[in-house]
Amino acid sequence: MSIKKIDHLGIAVRSLDESIKYYETVLGLKCEHREEVPSQKVRTAFFAVGEVHVELLEPTAEDSPIAKFLAKNGEGIHHVAFGSDDVVGQLAQAKAAGAQLIHETPIDGAGNKLVAFLHPKSTHGVLTEFCQPKGGCSCGGDHHHH
Amino acid sequence: MSIKKIDHLGIAVRSLDESIKYYETVLGLKCEHREEVPSQKVRTAFFAVGEVHVELLEPTAEDSPIAKFLAKNGEGIHHVAFGSDDVVGQLAQAKAAGAQLIHETPIDGAGNKLVAFLHPKSTHGVLTEFCQPKGGCSCGGDHHHH
Repeated sequence: MSIKKIDHLGIAVRSLDESIKYYETVLGLKCEHREEVPSQKVRTAFFAVGEVHVELLEPTAEDSPIAKFLAKNGEGIHHVAFGSDDVVGQLAQAKAAGAQLIHETPIDGAGNKLVAFLHPKSTHGVLTEFCQPKGGCSCGGDHHHH
Repeated sequence: MSIKKIDHLGIAVRSLDESIKYYETVLGLKCEHREEVPSQKVRTAFFAVGEVHVELLEPTAEDSPIAKFLAKNGEGIHHVAFGSDDVVGQLAQAKAAGAQLIHETPIDGAGNKLVAFLHPKSTHGVLTEFCQPKGGCSCGGDHHHH
């Protein structure tokens, strides 16, 4: 049981269109997928950067978690997701070491993954996600799940 | 000329020792290298996570850029470094697309790399670094430079 890679960086933005233009023209990356996630009240856009995905998050409602983040912090990195082969094991290890869990057991996330978050108060300021593809894939290979 | 990967995430922390303990016990990662960078007034610690390095940054003086970041924001992600095979070309592309450059030409960074930063006012909230190993390596392979 171990972390294999950084699966994605979640970045809160005010406008998906403006930020996609920035990532494409300034950084030269290519947006490969857009998806609305109604349960999180966000629209997302994904860019592959090596084995990591940059995930832009635009709120679709004022009570979206991303809207609250933007009101408090402005645009910027919202969370870091670590790809593991065993999210349940990661949670047990984290809890035993004293971290505060937002999810005691994994929940369904976008891209057919199991995900769980640690509370940023116990992670030295980084909202931390563990994620694992459903179906037993190790999340450490070259597959793309988005 | 293109971005090959996310080279590292720079994370501002108050105490390297406490944060190393967190990354090792809660996340199960292993600190592989520590280094003081007097020019930046920081002590650093590196963890390999797949092809990305997590770089913890603790200030060594009150006028360290990281001390100022901590005073304003608290602990959290300070910058994202994109590994490219051509930092000069990345800067030209970024400038042509309207980004504000902190460095017009690359400077020497830690780990024998050329580095340059974009100003976060023009990057939708993410302090963005381009980096490239000196000596022509593509930065996209499996080498470890720390």
